[in-house]
Amino acid sequence: MDDFLEDTGPIDLVDTDAVARAVVPEVRPTTFVRAEALDAAAGAEVILAVEAFQPTGSFKDRGAAALALHLPAEHLLCASSGNFGAALARACRRHGKRATVVMPAASSKVKIAAVERQGGSVELVDTQKMSRKARLLRLAEAHPEAAVVSPYDDTYVIAGNSTLGDEIFAAHAPDAVLVPVGGGGLASGLVHARARAGKKTPIIGAEPLLANDAARSLRAGVLVRDEKEADTLCDGARTLSLGQRNFAILRRGLERIVEIAEDGVAAALRLCFSAANLKVEPTAALSVAALLADRAAFAQKRVVCVVSGGNVDPSLYARLLSAA
Amino acid sequence: MDDFLEDTGPIDLVDTDAVARAVVPEVRPTTFVRAEALDAAAGAEVILAVEAFQPTGSFKDRGAAALALHLPAEHLLCASSGNFGAALARACRRHGKRATVVMPAASSKVKIAAVERQGGSVELVDTQKMSRKARLLRLAEAHPEAAVVSPYDDTYVIAGNSTLGDEIFAAHAPDAVLVPVGGGGLASGLVHARARAGKKTPIIGAEPLLANDAARSLRAGVLVRDEKEADTLCDGARTLSLGQRNFAILRRGLERIVEIAEDGVAAALRLCFSAANLKVEPTAALSVAALLADRAAFAQKRVVCVVSGGNVDPSLYARLLSAA
Repeated sequence: MDDFLEDTGPIDLVDTDAVARAVVPEVRPTTFVRAEALDAAAGAEVILAVEAFQPTGSFKDRGAAALALHLPAEHLLCASSGNFGAALARACRRHGKRATVVMPAASSKVKIAAVERQGGSVELVDTQKMSRKARLLRLAEAHPEAAVVSPYDDTYVIAGNSTLGDEIFAAHAPDAVLVPVGGGGLASGLVHARARAGKKTPIIGAEPLLANDAARSLRAGVLVRDEKEADTLCDGARTLSLGQRNFAILRRGLERIVEIAEDGVAAALRLCFSAANLKVEPTAALSVAALLADRAAFAQKRVVCVVSGGNVDPSLYARLLSAA
Repeated sequence: MDDFLEDTGPIDLVDTDAVARAVVPEVRPTTFVRAEALDAAAGAEVILAVEAFQPTGSFKDRGAAALALHLPAEHLLCASSGNFGAALARACRRHGKRATVVMPAASSKVKIAAVERQGGSVELVDTQKMSRKARLLRLAEAHPEAAVVSPYDDTYVIAGNSTLGDEIFAAHAPDAVLVPVGGGGLASGLVHARARAGKKTPIIGAEPLLANDAARSLRAGVLVRDEKEADTLCDGARTLSLGQRNFAILRRGLERIVEIAEDGVAAALRLCFSAANLKVEPTAALSVAALLADRAAFAQKRVVCVVSGGNVDPSLYARLLSAA
């Protein structure tokens, strides 16, 4: 999409510290949760950084706030599987702007409803027939005054997301940080925050095996794109590829990526439910799934798992709970 | 049960402030959660005080810590539907004591497992055949060195629970506080905290209609007991009556009690899921259910709802989610 995205310039020309400072009052501090039963299951000291209680239920409020605060356009267009859409709609509403969100028709109902509740316009696209990008291009032509923004491949978004990393490195001294990877915006933000904190803590991605473009990209050393959106439970990781900015940051900044089978996602979601009393969305369970998938690597270590959001349809959630 | 319970003396002879101070480092601060969708559903400014992330997943860690810290006995016996049992087992383990917990055979599996995981001994009793009290009496005879403690009718427990009230009144200036009522220990703690804070904020109980002994007691002006444990979803409110100490505190300290039908409990549990990304146990949903059941009373007001815990069997939870 990068050929027509709002160009926010190379990241080193933006005062990302200032962007991050402006974002902090727009969101809630993350909620750190510890659970003895989770430690026991993982054989590690596990600290969950839970973003499910943000205003629209995911970390996306951070990046969206950065965009709404810093872009001059009065109308922002984006494509989103849902969480970013709701976050952008809310941030635009707070700052007197309009938001239009292209969403896959297969998006979870709660995510579509959330965008609309925040006053955003939703444009559904059947991604088996037309890409999000094509639909977004048409909208951009119809609204030349609007800025098309990326949910992840954007300097402001990355700077906004870095505020979560600031909180993690300020509150804890982890041996590792595990983070779900979709477009790579959250992981990129953590890499930035790590640099700002002057730490060398390994940051490890977690990605669905069914949508493992980021893992393949890191292995290949070039940005790999999927042809079609994968049918993974993790709707936040159905993106076709990392963003270009994200790839540039993550190829150096990410230690590695753990690839997670679908049943590992469901098991981690259930563990969050039973061991930590947390409702997490499938994409958010990736970090905990990675911890369990690679127990040996994290044994006895202090690990922060980023639980990126909590928005999931009740029917899907009930099915996953019952599938044990 | 009061004839053979450990007598911790009249509440005004115990330095409850000192007890409360000792409890604070033993537990986690409550987690305040706001959600725009919840405000919209209730027509009020709703602040959830969420106790689901306490070490054993409910507010009971507060009172249990107070007991383990202050009673000289090395072995504590109690009857509990589960949450207090796990909390007492954990508190005893931390302070080098033993805990034995009498639980109804119908207790949720996760609650039985939680007591055992904390190193407590579980004694199951079929409450249709023998009361918890009778089973507890036999155990007390078999263990004369042990102290039999109440999960709610106890000065230390009430003082421990008052720490949640301290947090609420320190962080917020609510127009009302809504709190689930089972044995009345949590509500009593809030009444104490309100006095300590020098406030007059109305504290309103929420109780299942199927187990409305507390509401009937307040109406009658005398302590009313149920004959058998009611088959309510709210396992934390199946107690046969308020404690004597609790009744004495609540008949003056509680504004009133809202009685909640079972489907109101389930609807509130679902609302916490969808509007606030919270997994709550049925008993904990009572406060939110009361808000919805009596919308007119709370319209446009700032209301703290105490979400007392998060421990619920996944199969029951999935069923309640799907029942909408």
